[in-house]
Amino acid sequence: MNFERQNVQAMSGYVSGEQPDQADVIKLNTNENPYPASPTVATALAAIKVESLRRYPPPTALPLRLALAKLHGIEADNIIITNGGDELLRLLLATFVEASETIGTAAPSYSLYDVLADAHGCKLKKFPLQQDWLLNPDLADQLNQENIKLCFVVNPNAPSGVLNAVAQIENLLGRYKGLLVLDEAYVNFVDPEQQYDCVALVRKYPNLIILRTFSKGYSLAGLRMAYGIGSATLINPMQYKTKDSYNTDLIAQTLALAAIADQAYASNTWQLVRQERAMLTNALLAMGISCPPSQSNFLLAQIPAPLNAEQVYLGLKKAGILVRYFKVDGLADRLRITVGTPEENRKLLIALQPLLG
Amino acid sequence: MNFERQNVQAMSGYVSGEQPDQADVIKLNTNENPYPASPTVATALAAIKVESLRRYPPPTALPLRLALAKLHGIEADNIIITNGGDELLRLLLATFVEASETIGTAAPSYSLYDVLADAHGCKLKKFPLQQDWLLNPDLADQLNQENIKLCFVVNPNAPSGVLNAVAQIENLLGRYKGLLVLDEAYVNFVDPEQQYDCVALVRKYPNLIILRTFSKGYSLAGLRMAYGIGSATLINPMQYKTKDSYNTDLIAQTLALAAIADQAYASNTWQLVRQERAMLTNALLAMGISCPPSQSNFLLAQIPAPLNAEQVYLGLKKAGILVRYFKVDGLADRLRITVGTPEENRKLLIALQPLLG
Repeated sequence: MNFERQNVQAMSGYVSGEQPDQADVIKLNTNENPYPASPTVATALAAIKVESLRRYPPPTALPLRLALAKLHGIEADNIIITNGGDELLRLLLATFVEASETIGTAAPSYSLYDVLADAHGCKLKKFPLQQDWLLNPDLADQLNQENIKLCFVVNPNAPSGVLNAVAQIENLLGRYKGLLVLDEAYVNFVDPEQQYDCVALVRKYPNLIILRTFSKGYSLAGLRMAYGIGSATLINPMQYKTKDSYNTDLIAQTLALAAIADQAYASNTWQLVRQERAMLTNALLAMGISCPPSQSNFLLAQIPAPLNAEQVYLGLKKAGILVRYFKVDGLADRLRITVGTPEENRKLLIALQPLLG
Repeated sequence: MNFERQNVQAMSGYVSGEQPDQADVIKLNTNENPYPASPTVATALAAIKVESLRRYPPPTALPLRLALAKLHGIEADNIIITNGGDELLRLLLATFVEASETIGTAAPSYSLYDVLADAHGCKLKKFPLQQDWLLNPDLADQLNQENIKLCFVVNPNAPSGVLNAVAQIENLLGRYKGLLVLDEAYVNFVDPEQQYDCVALVRKYPNLIILRTFSKGYSLAGLRMAYGIGSATLINPMQYKTKDSYNTDLIAQTLALAAIADQAYASNTWQLVRQERAMLTNALLAMGISCPPSQSNFLLAQIPAPLNAEQVYLGLKKAGILVRYFKVDGLADRLRITVGTPEENRKLLIALQPLLG
């Protein structure tokens, strides 16, 4: 006897990037920050007493929400803390999307969206990005025409790293009748000169939810901490109705609080990543490999014919370097490469050379 | 504009027990273990390096599953690790229950089941326990007759603490055509003389899922770690399709592993709780307050008329002692009291005396 729901029986699960056991692998495949978290996080970790774990944690992580509210110039009730970004994305469907409704995404983007729609039992429709990986200026009309209840937009885009300016996002928001989920998982790596900050838009647009995470910018992927920002009208039903009662644990709340307290340290890691991103972009170009202009901590490298991206991926893997290869339409001639430390990036370039013939 | 789903708009959220900020409150309201976790957990915590949090954690917590499989004499693919028991309960609905189906519970029990059904958008039907708080021997027939897809049974029962024997559970399993969720959140406090262990039943019954948690027995409520045990056919779709990709974090996985490694320490806390449970049961009885025989770490105290349970709850609160009062039918003359340390229990008894007049 099979007890599974029909949609669950029919679906495939999410396939994440490889997580090798060997410590000596150079891991440029899942977009982690190449630098560890701030020493303030280590200090906070050392101060945690096991005795404090005996009791339940703050159910809505209020101390952390207050600190984030201060950081972003908003209120604590504009924020929900989630067990990684995945939880927020799932909660958005659970809270706002009926199974009979259709959601959308500006594609290509994060392959988890497909899995979430399958698990929720709703339809997902993909709206192609332009050739330059930017949003189509007519996306709002396309979404409205197709009656799309909720749309995911990753900005900076994954897997290209290309950033849409605030004006472009606001243009979409002002015209789109559904709920816009702006997945800013990689926003910390945007060049400050871009003056990109969409947080203030949540005051003006009641249909905007922004996703932020501690995984990349704050080097805490192992901790599973993220947050959503939006009007209280959107945040409250997730906060008080649909999320698990105690969805983040005491240690994770404590360490996340410590991480944001040291903005200078985190900003410095972002700056180092940007420097290496520029270096790597130029070095790849000199080898005949072009990438869209990335504002993220990864590059989408186009492997020129007659070379084969999958062969290059396998060649790098053999050399102990993992990058991400997506065997899907539109990405089959590309490799997504996380920006590593200067040493890792140098080793990548050395390993690439013989593979390019 | 309201973006919420109809079922979410209509529902109320879960109301958890009070979590006071003051450290001097005697907290006997949310069934935490009165003793801290093992020193092995503190050692494991001290050994965690912040650098290790840079990368994603093991997505299915395989090292912990292997250790739990050994502990229970089952296989790792019979186990799913979840972010607290709440996540497992939610996943069961998300994976196995269509919104058009009805789930059941042997009532009274955990009030979260109602909230989970509301959030999922399915119906929940309550099947009354007997007067002695044991399962009705005809429950399987009742469930089959009403076509109940999934039924939650808490054993030992909450809020009474009464335990159904393995034979009673097996009688239900052998006849029930749906999925039985045996919520064993409090199982660690069962007297070993009861010889209660249902884990082996998952080999025989493909319709059984057992919930276990680190929150109570291992004193780690602040960590949000629990697990489900069942046939691989039931575990796999949750493990690889419907759970969030990285649902538990590296620190929580590491500390849970350390907690189960020290069975001697944990068992000792369970034994201490059992001793105090017996003492408290007798002392309350001597004061005219009877409780069903509890195999858990709490007592359901019946406040005899003309006394009023809510007044007694408020009187205790005034005295700095929190217990749980449920203002619902069938429980309005009761207080659920967590078994505390000997000192906490003595203070409770002293504070109760004047309230009983």
